[in-house]
Order: sequence, then C-alpha cells, then structure tokens
Amino acid sequence: MAPETTQTGRAALPLPPMKWDAWGDPELAKPLSDDIKGLLAAALGVSGGDGERLTADQVVLTPSRLAKEDAEALAAAVGAEWLSTADADRLPRAGGKSTPDLLRRRSRDAQDAPDAVLLPGTEEEIAAVLALCAERRIAVVPFGGGTSVVGGVDPERGPFTAVLSLDLRRFDRLHELDEVSGEAVLGAGVTGPRAEELLGERGWELGHFPQSFRYATIGGFAATRSSGQDSAGHGRFDDMVSGLRVVTPAGTLDLGRAPASAAGPDLRELFLGSEGVLGIITAVRLRVHRKPESTVYGAWSFPDFATGAAALRAVEQQGTGPTVIRLSDEAETAINLAMTDKIGGTTVTGGCLAVTLFEGAAEHTVFRDEATAAVLAAAGGTPLGPDPATAWEHGRFNAPYLRDALLDAGALCETLETATGWANLPVLKAAVTEALQSALRESGTESLVMCHISHVYPTGASLYFTVVAAQRGDALAQWAGAKRAACDAIMANGGTITHHHAVGADHRPWLEQEIGELGVRILRAVKETVDPAGILNPGKLIP
Amino acid sequence: MAPETTQTGRAALPLPPMKWDAWGDPELAKPLSDDIKGLLAAALGVSGGDGERLTADQVVLTPSRLAKEDAEALAAAVGAEWLSTADADRLPRAGGKSTPDLLRRRSRDAQDAPDAVLLPGTEEEIAAVLALCAERRIAVVPFGGGTSVVGGVDPERGPFTAVLSLDLRRFDRLHELDEVSGEAVLGAGVTGPRAEELLGERGWELGHFPQSFRYATIGGFAATRSSGQDSAGHGRFDDMVSGLRVVTPAGTLDLGRAPASAAGPDLRELFLGSEGVLGIITAVRLRVHRKPESTVYGAWSFPDFATGAAALRAVEQQGTGPTVIRLSDEAETAINLAMTDKIGGTTVTGGCLAVTLFEGAAEHTVFRDEATAAVLAAAGGTPLGPDPATAWEHGRFNAPYLRDALLDAGALCETLETATGWANLPVLKAAVTEALQSALRESGTESLVMCHISHVYPTGASLYFTVVAAQRGDALAQWAGAKRAACDAIMANGGTITHHHAVGADHRPWLEQEIGELGVRILRAVKETVDPAGILNPGKLIP
Repeated sequence: MAPETTQTGRAALPLPPMKWDAWGDPELAKPLSDDIKGLLAAALGVSGGDGERLTADQVVLTPSRLAKEDAEALAAAVGAEWLSTADADRLPRAGGKSTPDLLRRRSRDAQDAPDAVLLPGTEEEIAAVLALCAERRIAVVPFGGGTSVVGGVDPERGPFTAVLSLDLRRFDRLHELDEVSGEAVLGAGVTGPRAEELLGERGWELGHFPQSFRYATIGGFAATRSSGQDSAGHGRFDDMVSGLRVVTPAGTLDLGRAPASAAGPDLRELFLGSEGVLGIITAVRLRVHRKPESTVYGAWSFPDFATGAAALRAVEQQGTGPTVIRLSDEAETAINLAMTDKIGGTTVTGGCLAVTLFEGAAEHTVFRDEATAAVLAAAGGTPLGPDPATAWEHGRFNAPYLRDALLDAGALCETLETATGWANLPVLKAAVTEALQSALRESGTESLVMCHISHVYPTGASLYFTVVAAQRGDALAQWAGAKRAACDAIMANGGTITHHHAVGADHRPWLEQEIGELGVRILRAVKETVDPAGILNPGKLIP
Repeated sequence: MAPETTQTGRAALPLPPMKWDAWGDPELAKPLSDDIKGLLAAALGVSGGDGERLTADQVVLTPSRLAKEDAEALAAAVGAEWLSTADADRLPRAGGKSTPDLLRRRSRDAQDAPDAVLLPGTEEEIAAVLALCAERRIAVVPFGGGTSVVGGVDPERGPFTAVLSLDLRRFDRLHELDEVSGEAVLGAGVTGPRAEELLGERGWELGHFPQSFRYATIGGFAATRSSGQDSAGHGRFDDMVSGLRVVTPAGTLDLGRAPASAAGPDLRELFLGSEGVLGIITAVRLRVHRKPESTVYGAWSFPDFATGAAALRAVEQQGTGPTVIRLSDEAETAINLAMTDKIGGTTVTGGCLAVTLFEGAAEHTVFRDEATAAVLAAAGGTPLGPDPATAWEHGRFNAPYLRDALLDAGALCETLETATGWANLPVLKAAVTEALQSALRESGTESLVMCHISHVYPTGASLYFTVVAAQRGDALAQWAGAKRAACDAIMANGGTITHHHAVGADHRPWLEQEIGELGVRILRAVKETVDPAGILNPGKLIP
C-alpha cells in the first residue's frame, strides 16, 4: 500500500495529546482577566502585541522532502498505515512547547516540520527504520509527548536529506509489575496519566509529577532526566529507573540487572539524559510503590527567601521525609503563583510561602509531618494550615496555561531552571535574576522575575525562575537575548545549565562549559559507537 | 638524582597500611582455637595443608623490567625520592587481598610484582607520568589501599614493556568542607579512618564503612563503587559522590556541578566504577553529615531466611529509615559469623539473626527504631535486645582476619557477592549456594556456604556469601573452579556479577553478559578516547 503523501488534509495517524500551538488541553485554557491585563500594562508596559494565533489551516509548512522511494521503504518497514507526510500529522510534531516554539507557531512564514511521521510498533521495526535511515541519510527525531521546552524535538535535518518524527506512542503497555520487588516495566510511549492508571488498577503508583505530567511520556522522562514535584519523597525520574531498553543503529541494549551494582561504569546513566541522540528508549523498568494510605498537607510563611531556604535545607539534611517541599520567593508569593487558581486575586501575600506534603502509612506520615514542622518552626517559619498546600496541589499542572494567555496579551513569559549547592544558592539566584532583568531592560521592558525551590537534596536545591515582561520588537530575538544572559550567569556562578529541562538545542552551547572539552569528546565517542551515521536527533545535546 | 634501582633491601617509600601477605594489621590476627580446628576437620575434612607463610625475605619477585632511562625520566617527573624499584616497595603492591592473592603470596616460585612504584604528589605530575608512560609504552596500575579482592591491582603488563604501581597516598588532604551544603572534597589517597579523623575534627562524618574501611581509600571507593555497612542510611559510596576530578592521558576532567542535573548523560557514572582503566581519580566531592547525636541498636530473630528477607523488604519499602540493617541466614547465624568475636563459642543459635542500627537526632532515631520494630515484629521477628547489634558493630571489620587463620589451617575461605530484586532473591541464593557446593564437592570437599543481606534497596538487596571448605590439591585452581561456577550461576539466575567488590581481573569474563556486547563496545570507545595508548590498568574491567 502506498503511503499517505498529501501535504495537507486530515491526519492519518493518532495525534499527540497536546494542542499544537499551545500548552495542553484547549478546554483548560483561561483568558487573562481585565484586572491582570491592567496590571501588566501598568507595571511592565504590556500592550496588545501582534501575537494572535493562527488556525491550523492558516499555517504553511515547508513541504515534505521525503523522497517517494524512501517513504515506500519506510512504509514497508512499519506498515503504510503508520507513516504519514500529511501536514495535519507533521504540524503537531513540529516542535516542543518552549515560548520560542509557541511564538514560531504564530508565524505566517513557512514553518519547519518533520518531513514525515512514523509510528513503529516494535523494537524490530525501530531497528529496521534506523537501518534504512542510516543507509538513506535520513535524520530521526524521537517523539514522546512533545513537551520539550529546550528544542529537544526540533525537526533539524543536520546534513541529511530529510527528517522523520519517530513517535513512540504505540509503545503503550505495562509490560510487567513485580509486586514483591516494587518494579514495573512500562513502554516508552506511556504518558504520565496512563502510567498511573495502569499501575493504579493494581493498587500501585509511580508518583512522578512534573508539570508536563499530563502529556509527557515514560521514554521522554528518561531521555531528559525529568524531575517531578514529589522528588523529595520519590526521587527524580532517573533515581526511579532500574533498567532501560534502548534501540540504537548499532544494536539494542538491555541495561540494569540489579538494584545496585559495582560492575563498572553505570551505562544506564549514559542513556538517561541521552535525549534521543544515542538511541531510542523503548521500555523503562521503574521503582514503583503502593498507593499511599494517607496524605498530610502543610504550609508555612517565612519572612524572606534566605530564611525559608535555610529551613528547607534543615529539613532535607535532617531527613525528616516530606514527599513534597517547595518554597516560593517574595515575588512569586506576592502574586500567588504557587496557587495558580488564585493569581490575580486582590490579596497580596507577604513573605515567602512554603508548602509541604507527606504521603505514606498513616502513622509514619503524621510523624514525618510533625518532625518536619518542628524543624520549620525552629528555622523561623509560621504555620499557615493546610489550605495553601491543597490549593497548590489543585493547580499544580496549570501554570503553563497562563503563558499562552500572557503571550496572547502581548507579554513575554518563560521559565528556566538550574541547581547548585545550598551555600551557593543566594549567589546564583541573585545573578540569574539580575541577568534576566538587565537583558530585558536593554530590550526596552521592565520584567518580573520570580523564583522557587521545588527540588531539594541534602547538598543543594533547584532554582526555578518564571519571567514575565512586555514583548518588544521581535519577541523571539528578545527572549533569545534574555535566555543567553541567564545561561551565561548560571555558568559563571556555579549552577548547572539545567536541573530538569534537559539540554536539547537551546542549552547545547553551554554543555562544554558544564562537562569540559574532554567530556564532550567522550560523548562524541559514545555517539560514534552507537550511531555511526549520526542520524539520531542531530543538533541536540552534544556540541 | 638517580632513582633507587636495587632489587632488594629496605623500602624507599612509605608503605601501604596493610600487611603484604595477609589482611590488615598483624597485631589483630588471631589463630584458630583447637575447638574450631577440630570442627573444621570433622565437618569439612580440613587438615594441615601446605599453606605456611613465607617471610618477606623469602619471597622471590620477578626482577624489575623498568629500563634505566625510563626510570630516570619518571624520577625526573615526580622527584627521585618518590620512585622505587626496590623489592620491599614492590612486594606490598604486588596484588590485592583476595584468597587467590593470599595463596599466591605463599608461593616459593618467583612472584609477579610491579616493576616500579611511583608516588606522584600533584595532578600535574600524574599527567606528566601518563604522558611519559604512553610514549614509552609502560602500563600504569593506580594503587590506593590495596584491598581489592577481584585482582583490581594485579601488575599486568598487557602489551607493554613494564608496569608501574602509581600509589595515590600523597593525595591525602581534606581540600574543602562546606558546612552549609554538607559537602567535603577529599584527596583520593585519604584512607577511611583518616577521612573520619579529618572530618571528625570539625564535627562531621562521611559514614562509609565497608569491611575494607581501615585500609581502603577515597579514590578506591569511587573507582570500585564501594558500598558500606551503613548503606541503608547513607547510601552506597557512589550515591555520596557529587563530584570527581580525574586525570587521564587525554586531559583532566572535573565532573559534577550541582546536586542534580539534567545536562545530558551523567559522566560521573562513567568514572565511578572505572577501576583505574579510564583515568586516575585524584579528588572526590562527597556528601557528608554532622556526627549523629544518638545511636539506637536492635537485634531480631527470624524463623528462617525467607521470613527475615520479607521483613527487611517491608522495612525498606515502607522507608522507616534504619542506618544499618542486616540479616544472616541460618548457616551464618549458627556459627555466629555476624559477631566475629563469638565465633567458636559453644552456643549454636537457631533461626536467622538480623541487626539494626539507627543514627541521627535523638527523637528522630527513637521514632525510626520504633517504626522499624513494628514492621519487623509484624513480619514475624522476635526482638533480642541490643546486644547482638553492639557485638556486630564491635567486630564489624574483623572477619577478614579469620580467613588468614583458616588458610593457615589448610581451609579454603573466600567471599563473593551479588544483588537482585526481592522477588528473585531466594532463586539466586539457592542457585549460587548449590553451584559453590557442587563445584567444591567435585574438588573433593564438603563446604559450608553462608550468606547474609547487608545492603537493602526498595526494589532488592545484596547477597554476600562466605564459603569455607578444605583445601584439596592446587588450592588456586580449586577455588577458581568454585568461583567460576558461582559466577555462572549468578549470571544464569539474574544477579549482577558484583554488588560492591567491582570487576577487576576476576569478574571481567562475565562483564559482557552483564552489559551486552554493545555495552562493551561503548566502554572500549570511551577507553580509546581517554587512554588511546591503552596504558591504564590493562587486563581489568573491560573485556
């Protein structure tokens, strides 16, 4: 059967779960209130902007460059019904969901997109596709939920004739649940909610809740070293991974034989964070746990960020065991960003808000809450009762919707994140804030830079920044300048270029500063071994 | 100044802290009682044996093959006083401390040893040495405490003209202690006790207590993925590492910028477990903690190993937080192996002994003990009070001394270890036990195979086996057969080839089964990048 080669028309394939030009589910989007618009105009000079959205029909994509004979060979490998070059299939895989991505989706110029979309169903089909692509000089971009905010799924062709989006959504099964060991093997294409549904039917949960939870996939979490909001209790996603299956052009890897091992370098740690550049992750073995029998919520106010950060540090270093612990700085607290449903309310809250959440066996949960409360109180916190924490939990996945409304209103809005040791946290926070504000001021706008700590470790913590400013001139170039200033400030002040957003295309210029010139050479040597033709996700991760 | 090139005579360099032909400090060695000897004769047919030890003067080493001009060049690089080809310096670095190593040290045949010993004092000197060795085709074996039990410091020349032992003992400093972040930077040559001393002066501790603690070094712990007896509370050594400095022939790496990062593959995890094959670790940044204010001990009896293992699993999966938790099987419990000072006592203890230890803030320690006790009691444990746990702690580093006395008495004694998921634990334990007993029976002796769990994870645990049998014929060949059978059983039954002893020369034939053919090719590609001449620790780790 000949593959679908029309450039427009209806989608031939199942679509990604997320809207093509905005975050998430269009039903959940909310326009800004006139009050907020007035505030943005007064404080930041935000006005109308030319950011109106196109309909999908109005978007012009660059035509597919996939040669007919290549399309036929690929269709033969996966079944013609799983290959499409239709615009309606290509557009939703044209990029991720960074602010630059969303701005690009508003352009009336021809937009770049993968030349075809492919949905293989087995590892053997992936291996066959990779062999064909290596032979025919076609680049391959693995695609999960399409939630990248670092250009990780940009359809870059590199030196190749065409680029495919290889969507993993058919790898959608719970392969195995070992209820004794507390381990599950999940297909790479399983989304966050589907993972919880599959495990939940048997009384288990994964407990990985990044902001992309509703759309992102198991394979994507692994490939990007995702970190969820419950990381204090359950660890980062990479901590949960005990095994990985990876198909590469040079063969298939099945890594991870034991809960811990001293059998040399840990190769799982090469493929965690490999961002589709070293192979296609097809299945992940994960630590899971029984659904908690109780949840206890708490919230605290601290007079300032330094006091609050010291309190979180004390909790983590004493190990009193919160499942979630977060701290918003003064700016974020003032506009209630931690409780998205309350943003734009008339109350301006002072100080810094922290929320805590404890899950587990009832008695154990109560004890951990009490032990943590004692530490937080001793460190200068004032208890606020559970309500701010339940409000945070209720709106925990909604912040990205705000961005779409802000872009519509002519504001620029984006987030970025880093991490460092506790001692260096204030230095890094001040430097990044200053870099963003200066760069945006140079572009002609004041800015609001907010920050929170959402992931704590005994030795340090993450810093997550949210920036709002007025769009001035070319908003893409405007943000590129601010982002560059922030990244330079991160590297100059001892932070990591990314705590959980990954490298992709956007952070790639800074990776050599992070791992050194020899580190880059090591990555290139690994790449050369597993992908000698270099077809996997060109232009990402490795400089 | 000309280097020391005499083949015999007094040591020119500071010596390793451990006796050359036996474990540890000769003052602590104890001969077996006549009761135990009688028991060994009756149960296993152990008799005299020809295992008497030589004095150092009686040992004949193969002469140093280091060419005079090479020695002069190396002496110029590090200072002549830090290079020696004297037998008295070469013998203590001739191998590690596996049973085969100790048997080899008893041989009257010429024993192999490094051709010279070198003690560089700076990273620049190491880089200069590596450059010279690459140019002059000389192999380099990094040396820490010399406690390897897998042939990790065997003086293998590979295709090279000579082999150096590069002793890291001059990298002996606490470089930095960040009391806010709880991080310390320690030199690679700092031993376990010295690390605790340096940190302890300021109220901090590392808390890494493997059986090799008294002699092994920070660099060795990192290079071998060591795991200490407090791993339940403080994690494995690789978990504690936040940064590494590594000198390679291709340049120096400084890895680890943050407590956690999503900046691509984690290259620290390539050098943790790299066993001197990919570079020379010179300094390690480590998570440390304040000395605990209280310690609570507990001990429990379980009717059988399966019940005890299920109890440990419940503790770890519920996360009640012991610092130490261990379980001996019936055989190990019967001879009191967990309390080395009581071995050979007249009491034969039934069931399976578990010990627990909790460290931390007083209130928190008491709660964790109570929460753990509730889980252990519910899982079928009978409390025994604290005494067996304090007895275990008192003798925790002494078991290796027993082996020397057993070898003297004509017994064969060795340990080996693996790990797997909780569900697979009984299968793996039975298979390894059976493999060892069968192989030793074929060699003409019954054997006592004992086992304990000393490292627990939410998804699984380690299994640590101790084997005692009679020496029959060539004891080296006899043990090689038993070890091969055990390794094959581990791989056939889903275990890892090593949980914390590392790969070295002895486990190398099984590494490809562990990580796959493509995994081996990846390691080779990394090796080729950082050590193109292949001079670093030939014959170890990478098949």
